[in-house]
Amino acid sequence: MRIYNFAAGPATLPLEVLEQARDELLDWRDGGMSVMEVSHRSKAFVRVAEQAESDLRELLAVPDGYKVLFLQGGATGQFSAIPLNLAGPDATADYLNTGQWSKKAIGEARRYLNVKVVADEKDSNYTTVPLAANLAFTAAAAYVHYTPNETIGGVEFPYVPETGGVPLVADMSSTILSRPIDVARFGLIYAGAQKNIGPSGLTVVIVRDDLVGRARELTPTVFDYQAMVEAGSMLNTPPTFGWYVAGLVFQWLKRQGGLAAMERHNRAKAARLYDAIDASPYYGNPVDPVCRSWMNVPFTIAKPELEKTFVAEAAAEGLANLEGHRSVGGMRASLYNAMTMEGVEALTAFMAEFERRYG
Amino acid sequence: MRIYNFAAGPATLPLEVLEQARDELLDWRDGGMSVMEVSHRSKAFVRVAEQAESDLRELLAVPDGYKVLFLQGGATGQFSAIPLNLAGPDATADYLNTGQWSKKAIGEARRYLNVKVVADEKDSNYTTVPLAANLAFTAAAAYVHYTPNETIGGVEFPYVPETGGVPLVADMSSTILSRPIDVARFGLIYAGAQKNIGPSGLTVVIVRDDLVGRARELTPTVFDYQAMVEAGSMLNTPPTFGWYVAGLVFQWLKRQGGLAAMERHNRAKAARLYDAIDASPYYGNPVDPVCRSWMNVPFTIAKPELEKTFVAEAAAEGLANLEGHRSVGGMRASLYNAMTMEGVEALTAFMAEFERRYG
Repeated sequence: MRIYNFAAGPATLPLEVLEQARDELLDWRDGGMSVMEVSHRSKAFVRVAEQAESDLRELLAVPDGYKVLFLQGGATGQFSAIPLNLAGPDATADYLNTGQWSKKAIGEARRYLNVKVVADEKDSNYTTVPLAANLAFTAAAAYVHYTPNETIGGVEFPYVPETGGVPLVADMSSTILSRPIDVARFGLIYAGAQKNIGPSGLTVVIVRDDLVGRARELTPTVFDYQAMVEAGSMLNTPPTFGWYVAGLVFQWLKRQGGLAAMERHNRAKAARLYDAIDASPYYGNPVDPVCRSWMNVPFTIAKPELEKTFVAEAAAEGLANLEGHRSVGGMRASLYNAMTMEGVEALTAFMAEFERRYG
Repeated sequence: MRIYNFAAGPATLPLEVLEQARDELLDWRDGGMSVMEVSHRSKAFVRVAEQAESDLRELLAVPDGYKVLFLQGGATGQFSAIPLNLAGPDATADYLNTGQWSKKAIGEARRYLNVKVVADEKDSNYTTVPLAANLAFTAAAAYVHYTPNETIGGVEFPYVPETGGVPLVADMSSTILSRPIDVARFGLIYAGAQKNIGPSGLTVVIVRDDLVGRARELTPTVFDYQAMVEAGSMLNTPPTFGWYVAGLVFQWLKRQGGLAAMERHNRAKAARLYDAIDASPYYGNPVDPVCRSWMNVPFTIAKPELEKTFVAEAAAEGLANLEGHRSVGGMRASLYNAMTMEGVEALTAFMAEFERRYG
């Protein structure tokens, strides 16, 4: 029996995608081999790779003048790769601190250049984002970095910061493909795959041409955008199975109607869950309503001593992985693209029943 | 229908492993989720990760005092990570050049320190390895690097170099797990997974404790052995599916009788194929017989104009991916652990038939 999986990542994948991967796992495209066993330089795999890139470009409406890379190392690898590729050691980069992932990106960047934290939401316990009007960037900054959605805090920017010509860099790991975005606003977008793209071990980077070819001398070649652009992301053997599954997810997204349809789907799911939380004083969500995440919904119950009971009883009813992140406690429901409205409704029904029994 | 896949990597995997991965792809351990959808920090996945490490340690008889890491970035990522972790910019490291992969490792290392090429087999067109007696290492070298098996040239060392106390570093991507090795002879062993371990996108590093904790200041944290040791290879989300499949492969290897059994199996397969090549002047292999690879067997035919015909007709009979590497031409049969003796016999039968028809 498949359950509803609310994990924050690795996370639920579309059932159709998993079924296709399973059905062809031993004999892919009638070749008598698994896609895992196929050379990344074979015609068959190169077609998969190119189709995945083309579908991703179509879904995100990536304009000309951007490269799309399929890399290894995760978003955490990019925390290092971004300063190494975009700036020298004496440069300054502006970072917005809106949660645990921003903080990690800042910590790593500080090893490579001067970081100026131009907004810090720590005092709100990461339940807010800065007001657009309050943002002031360093004119000479090499780039501005922010985290549009914080997976742990459940906070997301309702706007794209206006940086006035400074390249904007965004860690979209937990929000990419959840809705249309205007890629032209960004210098660089990166995302670990394990939320809305596919299995872990694959990292997508979308980078504007003028930011490619500027890597520092000691950048490991696998993290040098220019080297990877020249090699079509195949400077060395890429994570082929992850790339293939990502391609299946992109095809699935197109069949769903693309990102406009995903936006409606995700907005509706989030609204349903926040409505359930707000409808009763038994449940709470600490995040400023203007920046509540559609993807990751942390919530509390009036009797924190019952949190373990909540998580365990939910799991027994097929609602899995609702425990909050260890750093914030409480509960958290992640509602990535592959989470269905049925899953959210099963959760809200369970919440009502739980309150009735224990409230 | 499954075929015999002689690809050099990504490469054939054990059928039992693929069948298990397929059977539980949608519902892993009755959890109602795919293993791809499970948090890397969940108890269930941590058990998989720990079991894989423990099985790998058992298979290779890794002594105490070594760490085992499951990383991203491929062997090519390690080409950078090794100098970054093991030596300062003014240090010298000795490298043995025995083929295309040695050469790439050397090229990357030169960016980070002084490389002394202490043996260079280029003049033999990479058909030899240096004589052990001719090797002289730099006493003050930070480490000695070599490539025990060259995937492209089909050359392998019949011995482990004696470095007299200098840490020995080996790129074992295409030979790891093919036979027992004495890990204590090495300071560091690394391998991309996509040959004898599992799907691409996973990199195994086995490193002696005294070589951990010495990374240069600007080493990307995902490439810092110390940081990864402290995090149990989970500093960030690891390639969970690859790690899981690698674990299935390790279990399969144990069921086969471990690496002593693999040695017999691989020795016999290679002997069968080299015997067929040597039995007829129609086939040739340029490698010095003392260092012919068990894993990758390049071979030529007397009429090179028929190479494409050979590859195509072999493929039509279910013997796939026999084309040689683009840099050397001819044919190549890779005989990793998962290649069966039946596959090798089907190939030698085809070779005899091809010679009869076209010779």
